[in-house]
Amino acid sequence: MEARNLASEDKRNPVAVKIAIATLLSKFGNKVVTSEAVRRQHAHTETWYANEPPDAVVYVASTEDVQGVVSVCAEHRVPIIPFGSGTSFEGHVNAPFGGISIDLMGMDRVIAVHPEDLDCVIQPGVTRKQLNEYLRDQGLFFPVDPGSNASLGGMVATRASGTTAIRYGTMKDNVLALKVVLPSGEVITTSRRARKSSAGYDLTRLFVGSEGTLGVITEITLKLHGIPEAVSSGVCAFPTIADACNAAITTIQSGIPVARIELLDEVQVRACYSYSKLKLPEMPLLFLEFNGSAPSVAEQSRRFGEIANEHSGGSFEWATKPEDRTRLWQARHDVFHAIKALRPGAEPVVTDVCLPISRLAECVSETKRDIEDSGLTAPLFGHVGDGNFHTVPLVMIKDKGEVARAEAFIDRLVKRSLTMEGTCSGEHGIGQGKMKYLEAEYGSAAIDVMCAIKIALDPQGIMNPGKIVPRR
Amino acid sequence: MEARNLASEDKRNPVAVKIAIATLLSKFGNKVVTSEAVRRQHAHTETWYANEPPDAVVYVASTEDVQGVVSVCAEHRVPIIPFGSGTSFEGHVNAPFGGISIDLMGMDRVIAVHPEDLDCVIQPGVTRKQLNEYLRDQGLFFPVDPGSNASLGGMVATRASGTTAIRYGTMKDNVLALKVVLPSGEVITTSRRARKSSAGYDLTRLFVGSEGTLGVITEITLKLHGIPEAVSSGVCAFPTIADACNAAITTIQSGIPVARIELLDEVQVRACYSYSKLKLPEMPLLFLEFNGSAPSVAEQSRRFGEIANEHSGGSFEWATKPEDRTRLWQARHDVFHAIKALRPGAEPVVTDVCLPISRLAECVSETKRDIEDSGLTAPLFGHVGDGNFHTVPLVMIKDKGEVARAEAFIDRLVKRSLTMEGTCSGEHGIGQGKMKYLEAEYGSAAIDVMCAIKIALDPQGIMNPGKIVPRR
Repeated sequence: MEARNLASEDKRNPVAVKIAIATLLSKFGNKVVTSEAVRRQHAHTETWYANEPPDAVVYVASTEDVQGVVSVCAEHRVPIIPFGSGTSFEGHVNAPFGGISIDLMGMDRVIAVHPEDLDCVIQPGVTRKQLNEYLRDQGLFFPVDPGSNASLGGMVATRASGTTAIRYGTMKDNVLALKVVLPSGEVITTSRRARKSSAGYDLTRLFVGSEGTLGVITEITLKLHGIPEAVSSGVCAFPTIADACNAAITTIQSGIPVARIELLDEVQVRACYSYSKLKLPEMPLLFLEFNGSAPSVAEQSRRFGEIANEHSGGSFEWATKPEDRTRLWQARHDVFHAIKALRPGAEPVVTDVCLPISRLAECVSETKRDIEDSGLTAPLFGHVGDGNFHTVPLVMIKDKGEVARAEAFIDRLVKRSLTMEGTCSGEHGIGQGKMKYLEAEYGSAAIDVMCAIKIALDPQGIMNPGKIVPRR
Repeated sequence: MEARNLASEDKRNPVAVKIAIATLLSKFGNKVVTSEAVRRQHAHTETWYANEPPDAVVYVASTEDVQGVVSVCAEHRVPIIPFGSGTSFEGHVNAPFGGISIDLMGMDRVIAVHPEDLDCVIQPGVTRKQLNEYLRDQGLFFPVDPGSNASLGGMVATRASGTTAIRYGTMKDNVLALKVVLPSGEVITTSRRARKSSAGYDLTRLFVGSEGTLGVITEITLKLHGIPEAVSSGVCAFPTIADACNAAITTIQSGIPVARIELLDEVQVRACYSYSKLKLPEMPLLFLEFNGSAPSVAEQSRRFGEIANEHSGGSFEWATKPEDRTRLWQARHDVFHAIKALRPGAEPVVTDVCLPISRLAECVSETKRDIEDSGLTAPLFGHVGDGNFHTVPLVMIKDKGEVARAEAFIDRLVKRSLTMEGTCSGEHGIGQGKMKYLEAEYGSAAIDVMCAIKIALDPQGIMNPGKIVPRR
């Protein structure tokens, strides 16, 4: 296997970049933007990492446009950073080596919906909410829901998941095929519309979660689901976070097909209370949703009620009316905004881990103690059915001591997860922020395999360099 | 990307093989077998392709053993062919370039079961039935069911699926992590026990379906499921195969969470009738199974009954008693034996395709006409909920004209599937038999990507050469 070449220097080539931009301008005219504001906006994500702007942004409208940009960049060995909605957390769209940001949000067409096959073909700039609005009249929906109104291209690229993964899986499970522009400018289709295949290497899954480091996704075939006949939601309060975790664990182990099961700690509940004006007890809560036929939903609710009761859960508030459900889940979706409002002026430093559910209560409890010991303000919430939780230290970036304490806390959190057979990133990807944990998670030989794949597909190292694997 | 090197010659090196075998004998003693009978048995699969035996077979007992064999083979550049239960259909374990077959069936330990996390860790020689017997007392089961009692290592390697994929997914969806010995002899673990992760490239899915061409799988972490509270099975007859397909399509589109929905054409029913002595109407049939709570199963059955009725389905025979269910599904599982008995002396040539379900009825009907026009005896059955079906021409191998007719028929079947946005292999893998269709399915640039990955991970080309991608 080819040896890894760790990037020890900034490999910018200002002359090559200038020539590439001039060529792009001649091809794409005013679709090429080099103003600082636009460049900085395209390096911006919801992250505390320093903004590292690209040298230019190109707004593309088609696979052919992407091929054009990639070919120019390949010729001059200039980095390419695919850009979607900019809602990632780990510095995925930063341009540490400069280069060209390809803004894909203009590629926002739903190309085809095949209701009879429960799938659709879309461009990468289509957002989650846009797709679901488009589909609603046909009784269909796309279930993966990371909270923010992310672009589906970005969701594929980061292997996103969210509240409904426990029932419907992550992006890994919901992508049937991808069209990808390779670093050479060639276009491939990774699979067919058939629901399953055992024909060769699983290129679809290779690109899902590759964070733009292997190619630019320009078309996505997604699985769809029928809108369930009945949906019921509810909230249940618990005296301790361990009780709430254990109720979630028992629910999953009992095989109740919950559509969502979300934990909010009392700090997060307080934040939601202030922000969303939703009257909730200031205790650890589980938000639940059940999908199915009316009798099945009722039965699931009843069974969960029994489990909650065994774990000292409070009484259950059920919302079957769409408007009440929407208000409830809006509060859950607004956690990020609510967190920001909790400590004005502070930067929310979002992080997540995921571990076997049997270790969840222990890991969450230890993490809560750690937050307290660190003197940080850090709400905690998560998709506990998957063993996945988030915490968001609110950090005054100018206070170096506080920044250091937050960094040390996240470091301990990741290592705690790894010790408990967990992963350093449940659903936020690696980006820049978690590269340093990848070797601890997989071991050095597995990282060599990832590097070998990266080198095989992107021998020039132009695709989103400085993310996931070290740059050659 | 590195250029493909098509194998134009047999690259055997008899001297290297001799030295490798001598070294293996000194390390592994009588675990190394070179008798012709054993070698031929290890090239044997349930296929009509000519037997191409390896030069020796090594019976391994541990990951360290596998590392030992791989290291010797790597040193002398001798091919390695991982061997499980030998139940694959596409010549996966043939040794066209000679080499060492690694028999993994001695690695048959269940290493750990984590009921609280609904997962287990096993060695690759554990078979599907063995695992489920082991799990039964704990109320758990592993759902993927390709029919034969395959080794789970082989099921991972071929991305197997089968009757229950419509509900529980394929091997792709049910593997959490793998331990793999790389062609260098190094060992990697592809993931953690966490239910989901967005940490780097999805190495797990890269090895699932890689057919031993990238490494040897020596440990598997699988998702498990709780044994459903209630199971009900049934059979429904239809006047035409198109009616049966359309009933299956409507069932899937209605979102009924069937656990199995299997089509048998009237030729297959006749074969099952003779073999299993099960009284079934000699018409196209759908075999169904519903899993869930008792009320949910009853409701699913009722809803299916209505759909069957709309599609001219006959009355429903329901089996809720375990012994009746077992007899019914045994008949379904015995299709392969039943087929063999249908034309004694003939070789069953098993093939499969999978396509979007909206095209299923059309493809099945055209294929039935093609079978008739070709004068072949070829039962047809399949996992129609996934759009996946099999047909099995019974061929007198000594009759060259018949062999040619069967080959031409399979060629037309695959091309028909590809024309209808399907795949050349729904669940049997590529092996030797379907390599020629891979480029038509994915296009040449995607095959270049597969070759680049193969070369990156196995630069010497020693892992199961002559399967999936061309040998360098």
